[in-house]
Amino acid sequence: MLFDPATLTYNEAGLIPAIAQDASTGEVLMMAWMNVEAVSQTLVSRRVTYWSRSRQAFWTKGETSGHTQELVALRVDCDRDALLLKVRQTGPACHTGARSCFFTSVREGQEVSEADQSSDV
Amino acid sequence: MLFDPATLTYNEAGLIPAIAQDASTGEVLMMAWMNVEAVSQTLVSRRVTYWSRSRQAFWTKGETSGHTQELVALRVDCDRDALLLKVRQTGPACHTGARSCFFTSVREGQEVSEADQSSDV
Repeated sequence: MLFDPATLTYNEAGLIPAIAQDASTGEVLMMAWMNVEAVSQTLVSRRVTYWSRSRQAFWTKGETSGHTQELVALRVDCDRDALLLKVRQTGPACHTGARSCFFTSVREGQEVSEADQSSDV
Repeated sequence: MLFDPATLTYNEAGLIPAIAQDASTGEVLMMAWMNVEAVSQTLVSRRVTYWSRSRQAFWTKGETSGHTQELVALRVDCDRDALLLKVRQTGPACHTGARSCFFTSVREGQEVSEADQSSDV
Protein backbone atom coordinates (compact mmCIF):
# COMPACT_ATOMS: atom_id res chain seq x y z
CA MET A 1 0.00 0.00 0.00
CA LEU A 2 1.25 3.46 -0.91
CA PHE A 3 2.17 5.49 2.19
CA ASP A 4 0.45 8.84 2.47
CA PRO A 5 1.65 11.01 5.41
CA ALA A 6 -1.82 12.61 5.50
CA THR A 7 -3.28 9.28 6.72
CA LEU A 8 -1.39 9.52 10.03
CA THR A 9 -3.22 10.72 13.13
CA TYR A 10 -2.03 14.15 14.18
CA ASN A 11 -2.98 15.96 17.39
CA GLU A 12 -5.07 19.15 17.55
CA ALA A 13 -1.91 21.14 16.67
CA GLY A 14 -1.34 18.97 13.58
CA LEU A 15 1.63 17.16 15.13
CA ILE A 16 2.71 13.55 15.67
CA PRO A 17 5.41 12.41 18.13
CA ALA A 18 8.55 10.97 16.55
CA ILE A 19 11.03 8.84 18.50
CA ALA A 20 14.59 8.79 17.16
CA GLN A 21 16.52 5.60 17.81
CA ASP A 22 20.14 4.90 16.90
CA ALA A 23 19.86 2.36 14.07
CA SER A 24 22.96 0.46 15.08
CA THR A 25 23.00 0.53 18.89
CA GLY A 26 19.23 0.70 19.54
CA GLU A 27 19.72 3.62 21.96
CA VAL A 28 16.70 5.94 22.14
CA LEU A 29 18.14 9.37 21.38
CA MET A 30 15.25 11.84 21.61
CA MET A 31 11.58 12.48 21.05
CA ALA A 32 10.33 15.42 19.03
CA TRP A 33 7.35 16.35 16.85
CA MET A 34 6.56 16.35 13.15
CA ASN A 35 3.77 17.79 11.08
CA VAL A 36 2.64 16.27 7.78
CA GLU A 37 5.20 18.27 5.77
CA ALA A 38 8.04 17.30 8.11
CA VAL A 39 7.16 13.62 7.58
CA SER A 40 7.13 14.11 3.80
CA GLN A 41 10.37 16.12 3.73
CA THR A 42 12.14 13.56 5.93
CA LEU A 43 11.12 10.70 3.64
CA VAL A 44 12.25 12.54 0.52
CA SER A 45 15.51 14.02 1.83
CA ARG A 46 16.38 11.21 4.33
CA ARG A 47 17.53 14.06 6.60
CA VAL A 48 15.32 14.03 9.68
CA THR A 49 13.22 17.20 9.90
CA TYR A 50 11.02 17.97 12.89
CA TRP A 51 8.60 20.79 13.63
CA SER A 52 9.85 23.03 16.41
CA ARG A 53 6.92 23.87 18.69
CA SER A 54 8.85 26.68 20.40
CA ARG A 55 10.04 28.30 17.17
CA GLN A 56 6.98 27.27 15.10
CA ALA A 57 9.31 26.38 12.25
CA PHE A 58 10.79 23.38 10.49
CA TRP A 59 13.86 22.09 12.23
CA THR A 60 16.19 19.98 10.14
CA LYS A 61 18.25 18.23 12.77
CA GLY A 62 21.89 19.32 12.62
CA GLU A 63 21.25 22.24 10.25
CA THR A 64 23.25 24.57 12.46
CA SER A 65 25.09 22.14 14.79
CA GLY A 66 26.13 19.61 12.14
CA HIS A 67 24.67 16.89 14.36
CA THR A 68 22.48 15.47 11.63
CA GLN A 69 20.20 12.46 11.65
CA GLU A 70 20.12 10.37 8.51
CA LEU A 71 16.94 8.35 8.20
CA VAL A 72 17.58 4.61 7.99
CA ALA A 73 14.00 3.39 8.54
CA LEU A 74 10.63 4.88 9.40
CA ARG A 75 8.05 2.91 11.37
CA VAL A 76 4.40 3.75 12.08
CA ASP A 77 2.63 2.38 15.15
CA CYS A 78 -0.62 0.39 15.20
CA ASP A 79 -2.73 3.49 15.99
CA ARG A 80 -0.88 5.58 13.38
CA ASP A 81 -0.31 8.25 16.02
CA ALA A 82 3.39 7.79 16.72
CA LEU A 83 6.52 7.37 14.57
CA LEU A 84 9.76 5.53 15.20
CA LEU A 85 12.75 6.78 13.23
CA LYS A 86 15.82 4.60 13.03
CA VAL A 87 18.65 7.01 12.35
CA ARG A 88 22.37 7.33 11.79
CA GLN A 89 23.27 10.07 14.27
CA THR A 90 26.28 12.28 13.67
CA GLY A 91 27.63 13.62 16.98
CA PRO A 92 25.39 14.01 20.03
CA ALA A 93 21.61 14.06 19.55
CA CYS A 94 21.01 16.30 22.57
CA HIS A 95 21.58 20.06 22.56
CA THR A 96 23.32 19.63 25.95
CA GLY A 97 26.05 17.62 24.22
CA ALA A 98 24.87 14.28 25.60
CA ARG A 99 24.57 11.41 23.16
CA SER A 100 20.87 10.94 24.09
CA CYS A 101 18.40 13.41 25.60
CA PHE A 102 17.38 10.70 28.10
CA PHE A 103 20.43 11.02 30.33
CA THR A 104 18.58 11.49 33.64
CA SER A 105 17.60 8.35 35.52
CA VAL A 106 15.26 8.03 38.45
CA ARG A 107 16.72 5.53 40.92
CA GLU A 108 15.37 4.85 44.36
CA GLY A 109 13.54 8.15 44.26
CA GLN A 110 16.60 10.17 43.24
CA GLU A 111 17.50 11.83 39.96
CA VAL A 112 20.86 10.63 38.72
CA SER A 113 22.71 11.82 35.63
CA GLU A 114 23.85 8.90 33.52
CA ALA A 115 25.74 11.11 31.06
CA ASP A 116 26.85 8.65 28.42
CA GLN A 117 26.88 5.52 30.55
CA SER A 118 23.99 3.08 30.50
CA SER A 119 24.60 1.48 33.86
CA ASP A 120 20.96 1.17 34.85
CA VAL A 121 20.21 -1.89 32.72
CA MET B 1 18.16 15.30 43.94
CA LEU B 2 14.83 13.87 45.00
CA PHE B 3 12.61 13.11 42.00
CA ASP B 4 9.17 14.72 42.13
CA PRO B 5 6.81 13.66 39.28
CA ALA B 6 5.11 17.07 39.59
CA THR B 7 8.27 18.75 38.23
CA LEU B 8 7.85 17.10 34.82
CA THR B 9 6.35 19.12 31.97
CA TYR B 10 2.87 17.88 31.10
CA ASN B 11 0.80 19.01 28.11
CA GLU B 12 -2.45 20.99 28.38
CA ALA B 13 -4.27 17.69 29.13
CA GLY B 14 -1.86 16.96 32.00
CA LEU B 15 -0.08 14.18 30.09
CA ILE B 16 3.50 13.30 29.19
CA PRO B 17 4.53 10.84 26.45
CA ALA B 18 6.19 7.63 27.66
CA ILE B 19 8.24 5.41 25.36
CA ALA B 20 8.51 1.76 26.41
CA GLN B 21 11.71 0.01 25.36
CA ASP B 22 12.59 -3.63 25.95
CA ALA B 23 15.33 -3.48 28.57
CA SER B 24 17.25 -6.43 27.18
CA THR B 25 16.87 -6.17 23.38
CA GLY B 26 16.53 -2.38 23.05
CA GLU B 27 13.45 -2.79 20.85
CA VAL B 28 11.03 0.14 21.09
CA LEU B 29 7.72 -1.48 21.99
CA MET B 30 5.14 1.31 22.17
CA MET B 31 4.45 4.91 23.07
CA ALA B 32 1.63 5.89 25.40
CA TRP B 33 0.78 8.65 27.86
CA MET B 34 1.04 9.16 31.61
CA ASN B 35 -0.31 11.74 33.99
CA VAL B 36 1.41 12.66 37.26
CA GLU B 37 -0.34 9.87 39.19
CA ALA B 38 0.53 7.27 36.58
CA VAL B 39 4.22 8.24 36.90
CA SER B 40 4.03 7.96 40.70
CA GLN B 41 2.13 4.65 40.64
CA THR B 42 4.58 3.17 38.12
CA LEU B 43 7.58 4.12 40.28
CA VAL B 44 6.03 2.67 43.42
CA SER B 45 4.56 -0.55 41.97
CA ARG B 46 7.20 -1.09 39.22
CA ARG B 47 4.21 -2.18 37.07
CA VAL B 48 3.90 0.26 34.18
CA THR B 49 0.66 2.24 34.39
CA TYR B 50 -0.43 4.63 31.64
CA TRP B 51 -3.35 7.00 31.32
CA SER B 52 -5.77 5.88 28.62
CA ARG B 53 -6.88 8.93 26.65
CA SER B 54 -9.74 7.03 25.01
CA ARG B 55 -11.07 5.54 28.25
CA GLN B 56 -9.99 8.47 30.46
CA ALA B 57 -8.81 5.98 33.05
CA PHE B 58 -5.62 4.48 34.46
CA TRP B 59 -4.38 1.60 32.39
CA THR B 60 -2.03 -0.79 34.11
CA LYS B 61 -0.43 -2.58 31.21
CA GLY B 62 -1.41 -6.27 31.16
CA GLU B 63 -4.13 -5.92 33.80
CA THR B 64 -6.59 -7.85 31.60
CA SER B 65 -4.27 -9.38 28.95
CA GLY B 66 -1.53 -10.55 31.30
CA HIS B 67 0.99 -8.81 29.02
CA THR B 68 2.54 -6.80 31.80
CA GLN B 69 5.47 -4.40 31.74
CA GLU B 70 7.80 -4.47 34.71
CA LEU B 71 9.75 -1.25 35.11
CA VAL B 72 13.51 -1.75 34.98
CA ALA B 73 14.55 1.90 34.60
CA LEU B 74 12.92 5.26 34.12
CA ARG B 75 14.63 8.07 32.24
CA VAL B 76 13.61 11.72 31.88
CA ASP B 77 14.68 13.76 28.85
CA CYS B 78 16.55 17.09 28.91
CA ASP B 79 13.33 19.11 28.52
CA ARG B 80 11.52 17.00 31.14
CA ASP B 81 8.66 16.53 28.68
CA ALA B 82 9.18 12.91 27.65
CA LEU B 83 9.88 9.66 29.52
CA LEU B 84 11.77 6.55 28.49
CA LEU B 85 10.77 3.36 30.31
CA LYS B 86 13.06 0.37 30.10
CA VAL B 87 10.81 -2.59 30.74
CA ARG B 88 10.64 -6.34 31.03
CA GLN B 89 7.73 -7.15 28.69
CA THR B 90 5.68 -10.29 29.22
CA GLY B 91 4.12 -11.42 25.93
CA PRO B 92 3.42 -8.98 23.11
CA ALA B 93 3.29 -5.25 23.89
CA CYS B 94 0.80 -4.51 21.10
CA HIS B 95 -2.92 -5.22 21.35
CA THR B 96 -2.69 -6.68 17.80
CA GLY B 97 -0.49 -9.47 19.16
CA ALA B 98 2.69 -8.05 17.63
CA ARG B 99 5.74 -7.82 19.85
CA SER B 100 6.01 -4.06 19.18
CA CYS B 101 3.36 -1.57 18.07
CA PHE B 102 5.83 -0.26 15.47
CA PHE B 103 5.43 -3.14 13.02
CA THR B 104 4.64 -1.05 9.93
CA SER B 105 7.59 0.18 7.89
CA VAL B 106 7.61 2.74 5.13
CA ARG B 107 9.94 1.57 2.39
CA GLU B 108 10.32 3.23 -0.98
CA GLY B 109 6.97 4.92 -0.47
CA GLN B 110 5.13 1.70 0.43
CA GLU B 111 3.76 0.49 3.75
CA VAL B 112 5.17 -2.92 4.61
CA SER B 113 4.27 -5.03 7.63
CA GLU B 114 7.38 -6.24 9.42
CA ALA B 115 5.42 -8.40 11.86
CA ASP B 116 8.11 -9.63 14.22
CA GLN B 117 11.05 -9.38 11.86
CA SER B 118 13.39 -6.42 11.95
CA SER B 119 14.71 -6.67 8.44
CA ASP B 120 14.88 -2.94 7.75
CA VAL B 121 18.00 -2.29 9.79
